[in-house]
Amino acid sequence: MLLPSLSTPALVVDADAFDHNVRTMAEALPGPRCRPHVKAFKSTGLARRLATAGHRTFCAATPREIVGMARAGLGEDLLLANETLDAGRLAAMAALDARVTVAVDSDETVDAAVRAGIRAVLIDVNVGLARCGCVPADAGRLAERARRAGVEVRGVMGYEGHLMGKPDRAERAAGLEPAMAALLDAHGRVGGDVISGGGTGTFDLNHWVTEIQAGSYTLMDTAYAKAGLPFREALAVAATVIARGRSGDRSYVVADCGLKALGMDHGLPDVELADGSRASVWFCSDEHITFSLPRDADPAVLPELGSPVAVRPAHVDPTVALHERFVVVRDGVAVDEWAVDLRGW
Amino acid sequence: MLLPSLSTPALVVDADAFDHNVRTMAEALPGPRCRPHVKAFKSTGLARRLATAGHRTFCAATPREIVGMARAGLGEDLLLANETLDAGRLAAMAALDARVTVAVDSDETVDAAVRAGIRAVLIDVNVGLARCGCVPADAGRLAERARRAGVEVRGVMGYEGHLMGKPDRAERAAGLEPAMAALLDAHGRVGGDVISGGGTGTFDLNHWVTEIQAGSYTLMDTAYAKAGLPFREALAVAATVIARGRSGDRSYVVADCGLKALGMDHGLPDVELADGSRASVWFCSDEHITFSLPRDADPAVLPELGSPVAVRPAHVDPTVALHERFVVVRDGVAVDEWAVDLRGW
Repeated sequence: MLLPSLSTPALVVDADAFDHNVRTMAEALPGPRCRPHVKAFKSTGLARRLATAGHRTFCAATPREIVGMARAGLGEDLLLANETLDAGRLAAMAALDARVTVAVDSDETVDAAVRAGIRAVLIDVNVGLARCGCVPADAGRLAERARRAGVEVRGVMGYEGHLMGKPDRAERAAGLEPAMAALLDAHGRVGGDVISGGGTGTFDLNHWVTEIQAGSYTLMDTAYAKAGLPFREALAVAATVIARGRSGDRSYVVADCGLKALGMDHGLPDVELADGSRASVWFCSDEHITFSLPRDADPAVLPELGSPVAVRPAHVDPTVALHERFVVVRDGVAVDEWAVDLRGW
Repeated sequence: MLLPSLSTPALVVDADAFDHNVRTMAEALPGPRCRPHVKAFKSTGLARRLATAGHRTFCAATPREIVGMARAGLGEDLLLANETLDAGRLAAMAALDARVTVAVDSDETVDAAVRAGIRAVLIDVNVGLARCGCVPADAGRLAERARRAGVEVRGVMGYEGHLMGKPDRAERAAGLEPAMAALLDAHGRVGGDVISGGGTGTFDLNHWVTEIQAGSYTLMDTAYAKAGLPFREALAVAATVIARGRSGDRSYVVADCGLKALGMDHGLPDVELADGSRASVWFCSDEHITFSLPRDADPAVLPELGSPVAVRPAHVDPTVALHERFVVVRDGVAVDEWAVDLRGW
């Protein structure tokens, strides 16, 4: 990745790779067949590019993402694909000049939505991930509870998050069948037009749903890069080499991209060297990454003080949440900037 | 920890524990013997409490922390305990109405500081951590280079970060001896009044330095809690239970504090139950934590939907960097709020 001269660390989007990713998804799942998940990128600027590509329905994980999207004029059809009992935040979403649907999975979440004036819900169904979602057998009862209170029940959602991280495509496919059987069972009890599910890892495997919730495909990360998907790594954290040293017989390099600039839950990031190869990453501390060349590498590739390096995060979502903006780069030149304006809750 | 009713996730500071930590440090290392590290808490509001306790010298890891501290009137003696080659950010620090010292460890970092008009430096010495810092034998030459350019060289710093995470106090103590021998060797070549080093894990073991750089002691985390220090866990992320479910024969609980609200590089956080015991944490996803009771626990302790839980982060610094404010709580009541106003770079 060709990096421009920037104050670092900085989130950098490779415009060519990003365009490729957006085009690939828009061709595979045009318009409302893909409901982009803004939690992956937290940016109305980026979301606007997806709307231009035909996706004008979005989902989100936090009320603040919903409110920010609506205020940016992207509120045609917003789904909070997550539960909340926060009366104030539910009321703020209900008051938006936007079509807002929220996920519910219990008496308490239905009642909280009703009390706040939320007008539409999806019944969230547990399809195998030990997280939110009711059991399928309870979905009809919850739908009925919401409808009796005058709330539109648009259908069901179920997130097969327990499959998303499996690098083997066949394993993801095999796991989908029982997961989606549970979701369709629930849909039979609930009704409605919407069967929402999926993610980047199953976007072309999940043929049961009416719409796929995917966000990571736009930027990708080193974890998803191992999953055999047709999307390219478009995101890097640009860093600057600020020190070099020796430990025993090894030379190492230190750049200014630490764990406060990286989501670390998926492990260490990759460092891309000037020749496109990957360095051996030793560790990250708060503001630094220490790496060396692989033992068989040409020592001339060891970056000099002041030179830029591209750090490839292991997990896109929490990485983005630590930054204020994306710098969009084409041919080594910054051509645009998108604020990360949907952070927080 | 008694939690007030809050929109969650939210950073909560236990005022009693915080006061204890500040008092304990101020008694052990009064005034300038402790140079609090703002990287741990990124808040001028919190820093002001430390100034009130007698510490009016601070160190920081990013230029933005330095600029923010100076603008908040806390610029009596600010140390950037980190290297940067960023001309714009160095110039911004040099232009502050504050006493700013920066760490340097190479010809390049000395020259960048000189060009930007920085007036004082410390020579940063590698004392065993494969990160920044020159070899001791080079420290005198770098000091001479800076002095020839008209810059004040106040002394040396060396961070024994390779020892900080060792839970065994005797192991930390044993490692200090060679590390500080290297630092004193460098100081002999450099001169100056300042020998800066240390951190929370070695605050009462490192008797070689003139000042200890410590920040985590103010709030603590589950990693430092294992190190046998006299400081209390004062920080939690307040969360709300939003779902419950069953997986096999286990009941689990889901709360709205995920890995976007937690530094994850030290691993999973703890969840504190109402009776003070700790839950079994299964996993964190972006916006959720899933946990269960230990097998021998009283099922009545399983929290209800809507109830608050305290999540104890494993690493304080990157956790704070994900939030906008601390809510300070005493006896279950929010009594103050400190903005996390020093985020970013």
